[in-house]
Amino acid sequence: MPRTSDGRERLIEAGVELFSQRPYGSIGVAELCTRAGVNKGSFYYFFASKEALALAVIDRHWTWQKGVWAGILDGSGSLLDRLRGLFDATAQMQVDAVTGTGWVAGCLFGNLALEVSSQNEPVRLRLQEIFDEQIAMIASRLASAVESGELQSVADVDGAAKAIVAQLEGLVLFAKVFNDPSQLDALWQNSLALLGLAPARA
Amino acid sequence: MPRTSDGRERLIEAGVELFSQRPYGSIGVAELCTRAGVNKGSFYYFFASKEALALAVIDRHWTWQKGVWAGILDGSGSLLDRLRGLFDATAQMQVDAVTGTGWVAGCLFGNLALEVSSQNEPVRLRLQEIFDEQIAMIASRLASAVESGELQSVADVDGAAKAIVAQLEGLVLFAKVFNDPSQLDALWQNSLALLGLAPARA
Repeated sequence: MPRTSDGRERLIEAGVELFSQRPYGSIGVAELCTRAGVNKGSFYYFFASKEALALAVIDRHWTWQKGVWAGILDGSGSLLDRLRGLFDATAQMQVDAVTGTGWVAGCLFGNLALEVSSQNEPVRLRLQEIFDEQIAMIASRLASAVESGELQSVADVDGAAKAIVAQLEGLVLFAKVFNDPSQLDALWQNSLALLGLAPARA
Repeated sequence: MPRTSDGRERLIEAGVELFSQRPYGSIGVAELCTRAGVNKGSFYYFFASKEALALAVIDRHWTWQKGVWAGILDGSGSLLDRLRGLFDATAQMQVDAVTGTGWVAGCLFGNLALEVSSQNEPVRLRLQEIFDEQIAMIASRLASAVESGELQSVADVDGAAKAIVAQLEGLVLFAKVFNDPSQLDALWQNSLALLGLAPARA
């Protein structure tokens, strides 16, 4: 099989697919190669280890997700409209996963975070950066909305953004345990409460 | 080695310890037996499979944690005092884990939820029951506080309790990724916001 960069691409795509569906520890290099249609020699030509592929998979998925997030967060409408659009898109991804595979996929970063944080230092450190970037993406839009006067209730935009991302991860965990994307329905109301914009349940 | 019930106990204790520290998929029956000091024949005398042990481990850990939660939630003081006590105890467990092992252990139930939900139906269904019980434990105390007039801001106690448990799981995830129990420090303020008791960041 020729060692074209196409093989590298196919391995990354196979990794995004498999690591999103099953535990990291349950997927070996052999299965990744089979899914990608490359042989083992080619794998080690492109990647030093399964961990090296995992880091490339994480970066690929984040590049994609960051684009989706930025597209929605920098779109038109009020901050609250855009934030709601982001949550709706997140829920829709889980609906699509259930439709395609029968299972809520959850968040690739959250899944890896809880599975391998105490086992794999490079992965853990990369996930730190990604969660920090997610929080910063929301915090910067909250800050703009505070500055423009749209949002007056938030003094600590970093803390509020972090609370919202934590709420998202917690509800995605419930969506996985209950295999039910509608667990994410509460994200909007809970985020409004975290922003001081609504009594939690009134 | 005699097949006393002591061997069963030691296997469950080994499971609580190992499954709390490392991914479920990375721990085999052989390692569990070594840690417990029982031989493989004895393992299969007590448990039909690693999954059967995992279910016993989950039940053991929940029986223990439920007792801790009930002791704090039914203790003296206002509801808010008791809720804060529960969060402080949760954070302290992560501090203890770091002191003992160098690593934030996270939540055994959350870890298993994200690692094996799409792979292991009996475990997933048992975790559903436990998260529902956790939410109900908090919801019932919120309801009592609403009834007594201590808490007037919460109309939907079930939704508020679920939001608080989701926030807890999300912040525990951050504690694991950053290997830093102080990630849980925001749980109190965020929970007040979710209860409509404080502007999130004012």
